Amino acid sequence: MKLYYAPGACSFVPHCVLELAGATFEPVLVKLHKGEQQTPDYLALNPRGQVPVLVDTGPDGSDVITQITAIVQHLDVRFPEAGVLPPPGLARTRFLETLAWMNNTVHPTFTHIFMPQKFTDHPEAQQAIRTHAVGQYRTLLQELESLCTRAAAAHAAGALPGALPWLSGAHPGALDAYALTFMRWGSMVGIDPAQFPALWALAQRLVLVPAVARVVERERLQLNLYKPAAA
Amino acid sequence: MKLYYAPGACSFVPHCVLELAGATFEPVLVKLHKGEQQTPDYLALNPRGQVPVLVDTGPDGSDVITQITAIVQHLDVRFPEAGVLPPPGLARTRFLETLAWMNNTVHPTFTHIFMPQKFTDHPEAQQAIRTHAVGQYRTLLQELESLCTRAAAAHAAGALPGALPWLSGAHPGALDAYALTFMRWGSMVGIDPAQFPALWALAQRLVLVPAVARVVERERLQLNLYKPAAA
Repeated sequence: MKLYYAPGACSFVPHCVLELAGATFEPVLVKLHKGEQQTPDYLALNPRGQVPVLVDTGPDGSDVITQITAIVQHLDVRFPEAGVLPPPGLARTRFLETLAWMNNTVHPTFTHIFMPQKFTDHPEAQQAIRTHAVGQYRTLLQELESLCTRAAAAHAAGALPGALPWLSGAHPGALDAYALTFMRWGSMVGIDPAQFPALWALAQRLVLVPAVARVVERERLQLNLYKPAAA
Repeated sequence: MKLYYAPGACSFVPHCVLELAGATFEPVLVKLHKGEQQTPDYLALNPRGQVPVLVDTGPDGSDVITQITAIVQHLDVRFPEAGVLPPPGLARTRFLETLAWMNNTVHPTFTHIFMPQKFTDHPEAQQAIRTHAVGQYRTLLQELESLCTRAAAAHAAGALPGALPWLSGAHPGALDAYALTFMRWGSMVGIDPAQFPALWALAQRLVLVPAVARVVERERLQLNLYKPAAA
């Protein structure tokens, strides 16, 4: 298997899932700031020019898989012992519901902050989009904070399995990695993680998990990039 | 089971899946133009104020499920004979990959055309966003057209099962219903479906399927709302 990833991008999610599952895979760095996702070779792999891409090579050839939600579910089938998804039933449905919301709401909202040029060529309109999206993104991080608080409360009440509370169920997984990514992205655009104590605690717990620590090391990630404005 | 839907919204997708699966369910109309998705009762059901919502009532109580991708996978487990998803393996991965792309890319792009006020309060910036998104949406419909063309070619070559070519596999399903919805939405904002002959043919085939015809009748949908500009 090969995973094409960019440091700190949403490819962090399958990157963590692969390490957590104990998979043997080759991580392939794609330098987005150098435009490597737009080279002819990369576009031959993924015409949409995005990371992540998982290449799963079996006896019948190589399958190229895109989209986090599809990659995560593919890895669940490939590593049935790893518990990438909760078992079929309501717990799995809830996992997929949160993953979908992260992927179709939280993630695209950040895109409006980070790449407003995707939505208009007008500089003034770009600035208006960015400002508006920062407010929405804070609201979404607050919703994520509530999910973390509820998971911690359920765990404290003995209603969640595992040694520590995670969004993904009994052990850390895709939802926790995505949540950390959103918090980290927020810190890059002036949102202080300290405003979201349960989310910040989850992220700090997550990077202590050895499999995740390997990913953080490989991607050379700093967890919190928030810089308070000068007084 | 109850499905909360709005005519012509993306709730068309689980609405079709339920009818195609032969499910017994109560369709509950939510009038978005009257703001019924923002009433206290509805927000108690889904705090995000969106359709669709599936309420699945079993012996242990009622489960409230949101997010198309989660609802579709929940229905696959509830109706194992219906083939809501292809069987586990590469076909299922490809299905989930396309569903994710529809849900996180095509659908949000249309939101920029239909509700630019979600992204800024400035009228001029809203107009800029809308114009930009129409161009992107045309490109995405072209990508959808390619998916339909490829499915038709694979079917003609005998590589796809079933009597007719569908995006969802051997029989019509969630991907086809979503594709029809995108084409229909495009027709509402001045994009002529005739520009996408394979997609248009798929949509016309789909509404002839009796289960889908029941949904179209209940939602009182017109398939093509395109009006050529006056000469």
